[in-house]
Amino acid sequence: MPHTTPPLDMAAWMQGHLLRVEAFLSDWVGHGAPAGLGQAMRYAVLDGGKRLRPLLVLAAREAVASADSPHSPLHSTADEAALRAACAVELIHAYSLVHDDMPCMDNDVLRRGKPTVHVQFGQATALLAGDALQALAFELLVPEASAIPNSIQARLCGLLARAAGAQGMAGGQAIDLASVGIALNEDQLRQMHRLKTGALLQGSVLMGAACGQADVAAQAALADYGAALGLAFQVVDDILDVTADAATLGKTAGKDAAQDKPTYVSLLGLEPAQAYAQQLHQQALAALAASGLPDTRALAGLAHKVVDRAY
Amino acid sequence: MPHTTPPLDMAAWMQGHLLRVEAFLSDWVGHGAPAGLGQAMRYAVLDGGKRLRPLLVLAAREAVASADSPHSPLHSTADEAALRAACAVELIHAYSLVHDDMPCMDNDVLRRGKPTVHVQFGQATALLAGDALQALAFELLVPEASAIPNSIQARLCGLLARAAGAQGMAGGQAIDLASVGIALNEDQLRQMHRLKTGALLQGSVLMGAACGQADVAAQAALADYGAALGLAFQVVDDILDVTADAATLGKTAGKDAAQDKPTYVSLLGLEPAQAYAQQLHQQALAALAASGLPDTRALAGLAHKVVDRAY
Repeated sequence: MPHTTPPLDMAAWMQGHLLRVEAFLSDWVGHGAPAGLGQAMRYAVLDGGKRLRPLLVLAAREAVASADSPHSPLHSTADEAALRAACAVELIHAYSLVHDDMPCMDNDVLRRGKPTVHVQFGQATALLAGDALQALAFELLVPEASAIPNSIQARLCGLLARAAGAQGMAGGQAIDLASVGIALNEDQLRQMHRLKTGALLQGSVLMGAACGQADVAAQAALADYGAALGLAFQVVDDILDVTADAATLGKTAGKDAAQDKPTYVSLLGLEPAQAYAQQLHQQALAALAASGLPDTRALAGLAHKVVDRAY
Repeated sequence: MPHTTPPLDMAAWMQGHLLRVEAFLSDWVGHGAPAGLGQAMRYAVLDGGKRLRPLLVLAAREAVASADSPHSPLHSTADEAALRAACAVELIHAYSLVHDDMPCMDNDVLRRGKPTVHVQFGQATALLAGDALQALAFELLVPEASAIPNSIQARLCGLLARAAGAQGMAGGQAIDLASVGIALNEDQLRQMHRLKTGALLQGSVLMGAACGQADVAAQAALADYGAALGLAFQVVDDILDVTADAATLGKTAGKDAAQDKPTYVSLLGLEPAQAYAQQLHQQALAALAASGLPDTRALAGLAHKVVDRAY
């Protein structure tokens, strides 16, 4: 029960899981690909990023597992499924950044403190590397020789495809494109971000939950958590675009304002945006409390990280 | 048995299957997407293309089904699985054309007699439409409410992901990019095409076979058929690039030579390339004969179409 569970050492929790994610990504990405393509894929994925989405998958899987019998026959395979889902969702995120940075989109030259993929490898290779990373994400979810139940493999593919596609991330990017220089109201801005960044963040939580056997009420609560966290992430992003500098951010700062893109800060003002982020944080925690799952400490810890991050 | 089976009316066979594929694609593509993105996705996919890959899926599924008991419990769901696989593989093909035509790749302005997607909708929307089509391809394969066995759903996802990714189509495109102006020998050219176009054509055949219960020998024979057909397709493409005009081809003719890209014609000469296409045709038919499947007429008909096409 939550009140008797000892506090979680988030730094240790994250470090342990990140080691597994990084090792798995390094094992899986870019091998067997023609040289230039494989290099670009690895450059886009490895040694960078906060890995928030993989950690959300793994934290959600732990929350759901905390309600399972430890003797459930699914336990052993759920671990592998969750690790594959964690890496798959990161590959989708990584490909979206590669394509987003290209000259025909955001035309960004700096990402995570390094030249962007198209600057380093050329636009054609960047385009193909993004395409190949998306295919690899789905390949990771359906290993040929594995004890992961096919029902879980198929469910993970469906969740990822919907989160990434036209009614998810890609759709949100299209709305974003169409909204430059246009005055969006708060509902429209929320809808854009719900798709653009929210869908994949929420999808990460749902994929983690799909690796176990959460009941419908717990799944709905985790979906609420994911929605609040996804929106909080974007509000904080908008705040950091104004308050942080490029060195801290690892990417070009002040771009949204310079491009006349609508943001929570431009719409609400800085302080109300900060208050809104705190409110979403509380909503996320309330959803965890409502889930009825015995141990949601890692998910709570990640919500805290999202709201209090400096970059 | 083949010698007692009446000849297949290929025109009628194709017409019937194409109607189903077109209707399904029109039902599935671009709905629920933000307006500009959905439009671009439909523009890229509908009312165009020979639909060779979907037809290969459906023909392979029929060949495999001809060996099944008609009372197999899989029969009813295999139809739906094959139609979904047929459309999914066409979405992957369509997205690859959208990205391939972009200025940073082939910079083509004409496709199927119409302006290419980036000319019509802008580069950013073309990039996103391609990305969203890839996600949709995988989404089609894992319907939430369906009687298609999860094992088949997962297997189809795996086959498609491998055919599309860094060790398939995207990998072949990367080799193609790197080979402009470089003298490839025939082995290197074959390896490039085996990935660039062959992987998805062969993948189509394997996906159709995965909708039924072919034995290992039949599957291997169908893989051989797919490999020969995939290579024949590319050899004929290279021949048509020299012998056809843009009006017949529906795209810019003579581009390969103008870009100094290696082709079977530049490597072998026109007549030897034509002879090679015929030889591959015979290999494809021999593989069908070796498959032991009772009815491979549609697959044989498609091999004929591939080699004897004028565009």
